Amino acid sequence: MSSTDKITVVEVGPRDGFQPIGPFIPTETKIALIEELYKAGIRRMEATAFVSAKAVPQMADAVDILTACNRFGDLDVQVLVPSARYADQALAAGAMHLSFVLSVSEKHNMNNVRRTTADSLAEFAQTAKALPSDTKIRLNLATSFDCPFDGAVSPQRVLEVVEGLAAASANAEIALCDTTGRTTPDAVSYLCREVLTRFPGRNWAFHGHDTYGLGAANVLAAIDAGFTVVDASFGGLGGCPFAPGATGNVATEDVVWTLHKMGIDTGISLEALLDASVQAAALPGASAGGRVRAALRGAQPCAGMEVA
Amino acid sequence: MSSTDKITVVEVGPRDGFQPIGPFIPTETKIALIEELYKAGIRRMEATAFVSAKAVPQMADAVDILTACNRFGDLDVQVLVPSARYADQALAAGAMHLSFVLSVSEKHNMNNVRRTTADSLAEFAQTAKALPSDTKIRLNLATSFDCPFDGAVSPQRVLEVVEGLAAASANAEIALCDTTGRTTPDAVSYLCREVLTRFPGRNWAFHGHDTYGLGAANVLAAIDAGFTVVDASFGGLGGCPFAPGATGNVATEDVVWTLHKMGIDTGISLEALLDASVQAAALPGASAGGRVRAALRGAQPCAGMEVA
Repeated sequence: MSSTDKITVVEVGPRDGFQPIGPFIPTETKIALIEELYKAGIRRMEATAFVSAKAVPQMADAVDILTACNRFGDLDVQVLVPSARYADQALAAGAMHLSFVLSVSEKHNMNNVRRTTADSLAEFAQTAKALPSDTKIRLNLATSFDCPFDGAVSPQRVLEVVEGLAAASANAEIALCDTTGRTTPDAVSYLCREVLTRFPGRNWAFHGHDTYGLGAANVLAAIDAGFTVVDASFGGLGGCPFAPGATGNVATEDVVWTLHKMGIDTGISLEALLDASVQAAALPGASAGGRVRAALRGAQPCAGMEVA
Repeated sequence: MSSTDKITVVEVGPRDGFQPIGPFIPTETKIALIEELYKAGIRRMEATAFVSAKAVPQMADAVDILTACNRFGDLDVQVLVPSARYADQALAAGAMHLSFVLSVSEKHNMNNVRRTTADSLAEFAQTAKALPSDTKIRLNLATSFDCPFDGAVSPQRVLEVVEGLAAASANAEIALCDTTGRTTPDAVSYLCREVLTRFPGRNWAFHGHDTYGLGAANVLAAIDAGFTVVDASFGGLGGCPFAPGATGNVATEDVVWTLHKMGIDTGISLEALLDASVQAAALPGASAGGRVRAALRGAQPCAGMEVA
């Protein structure tokens, strides 16, 4: 299915997964979980966000989390920033890898970061240009397939936005994000193949949600198309802000279990990851998702069902 | 992705989904749910099982269920039978479509139907041979990919068993069943393509579970390979007898939502199906699964998350 034998799984739980959790997770708990993820073999993580602490109180300890993460020498620590101002704050706090976020959909961008997409793109260009040479940048391209307000997003519109992003930064990795979980493998396959063909040499990532049960299917479609970097959240943490009660990000343990079963290496220990995922899913206020945790840690096997 | 524009979804909830539920579901409740499924557009259903009422008390009302189902003139009603004796009982009760079950894996067959696979195959041959000309037969080939006791099942072994089945009946549809939910899309794709190539003219179906989050991914892999008949269970009912707490059959609403989103017709109304699925998931003792129900019926949309 895949032409690659190694996939980089970016653990986004400490940012995307923790962010919607209401009760503040003590900073030391976050750091302990991040350490467990590191010990499980995670070497790339979106660890926190530099955002309005008033709008997202859960991310108020971004400086402490970043400082703690930077102690792991070989952990590639991304921090999310929604604007040039917050990018400056993150860099001042020691960030070596920024995740700038903007949305293809105007309505979602306005709702999420209170700017037009064009304004966000200009801020991204400014941030990328001013970036120290030893600092990396990724662009999280939200609503690359579907918008919670406007529905399906046309691939043509995505490609136009990508064109602008590519011009703004020669090196930025671009993550195509299925914000709503409503895309399907055929659409993922099409868009991933298009960007790989049209923008050779660029680094890409796929960020998917499992809201409609297609989390793993969409990740596999991206990998099958040639992507080698995929986001996931331990415990399936994340929820879906537009459908309370529904699950969110594709679970890291589901992705790792699937890839290993298909003979694709991730460098991650599933058992150690599950230890961390079980704790994450049990965090007060957490909206957990994924299947593999329940299948492997839910209960003990019992006898078969005799039908004859 | 698919070369077809119409897929037949076989609703197996009333058999595979109800079977593991402990508290007896009143027969009138079962019939009411079956009627809702019919009204939603389901035209093929595994409605009940003729099995030991002592081993599976939930199926004790098989005759009544079959009689009720036969009132829907254009509903293709499969009933599961594990042996020639139960096949005779089902035919005597008016069954027009039998689902004979046997397992590729010896251990699973012994555990499930207390016979060797060879003995089950002989009983299938006997049943198929004696079948009235207007009666259809399907073979549910359990553990076609993976066995709860022995792990991965080799495609070579499956193809050998299929060879015997094909010889035993020229017309039987064969359903490749991923009993444990542990197979992956690459393996599904391989085996589906192999059987289509090696046994031209034969009818096939794919029966998958969502225990590890690959329910939809595996269904899509089968369809992509050329299969046009797939099983699913409304509400994701089914559980997994080998991993209590884990979910079971892929949910019909997840499959239907996905296929419609990909432009593939099923003849099923998603909204009417969801009405039935919500009730099924709420049955006392039910182990429900799937994602789409929660995403579309779980709660009302709320505002976006502002990060800036």
